[in-house]
Amino acid sequence: MSKSNKKIILSEQDMPKQWYNIQADLPEPLEPPYNAREKRPATPDDFKPIFCDEIIKQEMSSERFIDIPEPVREVYKLWRPSPLIRAVNLEKFLDTPAKIYFKNEGVSPSGSHKSNSAIAQAFYNKEAGVKKIATETGAGQWGSALSMACEMFGIECVVYMVKVSYEQKPYRRSLMQVYGAQVFSSPSNRTETGKKVLAEDPDNEGSLGIAISEAIEDVVTSKNAKYSLGSVLNHVAMHQTIIGLEAKKQFEIAGDYPDIVVACLGGGSNFSGAAFPFLMDKLQGKKPYLRAIAAEPSACPKLSKGVLAYDFGDSSGFTPALKMYTLGHTFMPGGIHAGGLRYHGASPLVSALVKHKVVESAVVKQRAVFEAAVAFAKTEGILPAPESAHAIKVVIDEALKAKEEGKAKTILFNLSGHGHFDLSAYDNYLSGKMTDYEYPEEKVAQALTHLPEIK
Amino acid sequence: MSKSNKKIILSEQDMPKQWYNIQADLPEPLEPPYNAREKRPATPDDFKPIFCDEIIKQEMSSERFIDIPEPVREVYKLWRPSPLIRAVNLEKFLDTPAKIYFKNEGVSPSGSHKSNSAIAQAFYNKEAGVKKIATETGAGQWGSALSMACEMFGIECVVYMVKVSYEQKPYRRSLMQVYGAQVFSSPSNRTETGKKVLAEDPDNEGSLGIAISEAIEDVVTSKNAKYSLGSVLNHVAMHQTIIGLEAKKQFEIAGDYPDIVVACLGGGSNFSGAAFPFLMDKLQGKKPYLRAIAAEPSACPKLSKGVLAYDFGDSSGFTPALKMYTLGHTFMPGGIHAGGLRYHGASPLVSALVKHKVVESAVVKQRAVFEAAVAFAKTEGILPAPESAHAIKVVIDEALKAKEEGKAKTILFNLSGHGHFDLSAYDNYLSGKMTDYEYPEEKVAQALTHLPEIK
Repeated sequence: MSKSNKKIILSEQDMPKQWYNIQADLPEPLEPPYNAREKRPATPDDFKPIFCDEIIKQEMSSERFIDIPEPVREVYKLWRPSPLIRAVNLEKFLDTPAKIYFKNEGVSPSGSHKSNSAIAQAFYNKEAGVKKIATETGAGQWGSALSMACEMFGIECVVYMVKVSYEQKPYRRSLMQVYGAQVFSSPSNRTETGKKVLAEDPDNEGSLGIAISEAIEDVVTSKNAKYSLGSVLNHVAMHQTIIGLEAKKQFEIAGDYPDIVVACLGGGSNFSGAAFPFLMDKLQGKKPYLRAIAAEPSACPKLSKGVLAYDFGDSSGFTPALKMYTLGHTFMPGGIHAGGLRYHGASPLVSALVKHKVVESAVVKQRAVFEAAVAFAKTEGILPAPESAHAIKVVIDEALKAKEEGKAKTILFNLSGHGHFDLSAYDNYLSGKMTDYEYPEEKVAQALTHLPEIK
Repeated sequence: MSKSNKKIILSEQDMPKQWYNIQADLPEPLEPPYNAREKRPATPDDFKPIFCDEIIKQEMSSERFIDIPEPVREVYKLWRPSPLIRAVNLEKFLDTPAKIYFKNEGVSPSGSHKSNSAIAQAFYNKEAGVKKIATETGAGQWGSALSMACEMFGIECVVYMVKVSYEQKPYRRSLMQVYGAQVFSSPSNRTETGKKVLAEDPDNEGSLGIAISEAIEDVVTSKNAKYSLGSVLNHVAMHQTIIGLEAKKQFEIAGDYPDIVVACLGGGSNFSGAAFPFLMDKLQGKKPYLRAIAAEPSACPKLSKGVLAYDFGDSSGFTPALKMYTLGHTFMPGGIHAGGLRYHGASPLVSALVKHKVVESAVVKQRAVFEAAVAFAKTEGILPAPESAHAIKVVIDEALKAKEEGKAKTILFNLSGHGHFDLSAYDNYLSGKMTDYEYPEEKVAQALTHLPEIK
């Protein structure tokens, strides 16, 4: 075993003081959101009922760097800066000349990277006088991050949790409740949307689409309440860039720089956070050969197999339409264990970068993902979340390619979360019962016939 | 919120290179273990069938400092040095002049402090040519730490897991299996002990005592196999002192020193690890006023309510007898959620220090413990393990006392693990269903009639 430094640690003083907004460096400006109901481009006013002004401003901003408010930095210090770790044991196991580094976002109190944006959003809402934030959650990573963030800033938090997860994953629900959040099984009888669904089908198991609709309805019918989203949107991606900005400083200390950055992609916030600060160098012409790879599950590969089109963010079509790679907002992906990757669309920012061939994607299958996860746990000790394990599978593939080519490539990936909440998935894998998912070509083709009409 | 440093981080270079062995500084030497079967003091030879030579040497050693082998330090670097964190938000919530610091051992890959000794034990066994290590585990913290450690050093790991936990806590079992361990529900039909128990009662739910017996039987009937214990013994306590040794360096950086050190006590390894390096200063006369408090559950308060006597380490009476505070080896504590504190005896080292009034103990009740845990999670973000929350309750009591007295005391506690595996316990608390446990006076009196006879 090497006696060199295993971890590269930044001091709190060296924690970045600004987020990076990649909108400043895009090859062309983003196409604006579209109000499909009124058949016109969406304006900031369309977002006012659900987001506070500062969030809307950040969503539309093209300023390159935006200050991280001091109170947000103070909460970040509960666990940030997160370590950059050299995966020496994994390298040896693979017998690769590649150097593999990872950021460990699993050290956050909620166990994943989601806290980076949750805390920022809770702060801005608090500043704007908002008393309550409502959101939806599937498996619960976002819900638990937001619950903790709201508690830190003294804001009421209401979470609509997809019924099937509410019942099957009580651990995450309890975590939200410890942080003081009210958690409701969705569909609930607290909203017209929920009541309507339950009237038609009392046994409806819920979906993210229904939960989003319930959260938004809760917000627009409450006083001093706003909605909060944990991925996809530009401001969320920006808040996550603290990951990559820290990593850049840590690579400076290591005297290294990645040739390849890998992160899994669900809505895109994790990928954006890890990759955008490095992609700044590529977009500015300083690192033309840098590769950034978004790891996608075969069950839901929007960047690799979807179309670039305006589509709704939710399955019911309540939100403004966004220009993004999508499998269609009515598409329901197979039940892979990486719940955070079961989203039909990809962040408009990442989508634009894929379109311009700045970002690549790679599709991986569930069993190979868990094989990679177990290899990682056995060599590096840390049990990865199933989402993060998608990145690990791609990293292993790239490291083995580097071995074939005899090239000492430097690879960075983001370990977006730990897997201590996901051991039933590991059990499923170890017992040999895990199934793979083929790309559901027909279901996607069907869903793509439901894209909104854009004038 | 304060803008000062939240965390005090040591570099890997500053990680201690030696463990501290408090046997060098005891007011009088420990009384030796006793072979109750043969009615004589135990010798190193009594331990040879189950422990390798280096472990036995450490168990008996009175050298003050013992080198941490380089390969152990390398594995420690996966997460060590662990942060020392100032709980500023908790201080504000309590409105106390006390300064509260905690070491966060929850950042280890297994989620608790147990890895500190597991890795050392796996290394020494590997060096001794041991091919297999067997152990027992209740809730699974020790089992998962040892599984990971064995995987790191390429040793086979066999874990006998108490049946009721095996069935009710499949998450920890799966974690051990990810690390490549073989996990058996105990009583099993792999040993004579297990077969006998099952023949008498096929529905027997198991106990730590039975699991210890099975692990030891497995070891003595296998080739090149040794047994491993996660607490109680001197060498285990010593391996854990890396916690307090790091904390001392971190307090130097902070320009501070604790007036009070608090840690929960099950078998004693966590308490020893946090407190012994500070108690060295007290025993050497440098810090006469330092207080060290072991937090005990009302269901199992051996230091506060037990007797100091020779007793067996397991409920079946297979092990040598140790001089320790005990509630009797046949005592079965109530089903508190802090499974790691449900042990009838306390480490002989801690017991000796209590006898000499160097260490205090405090008894806390389960509901108050969870109230403290939730307050901590809400203010500091981190969800504590139920075991660690016992320390938090005592810390809060001491901080409120400091407030009453108007004294700016400095308090350190060890957060021995995170609570992400324990959310069903939190759910039990939040739903109002949690019960308290009174001290079981009659059951203890009964168990104390079964202490071994010592000549």
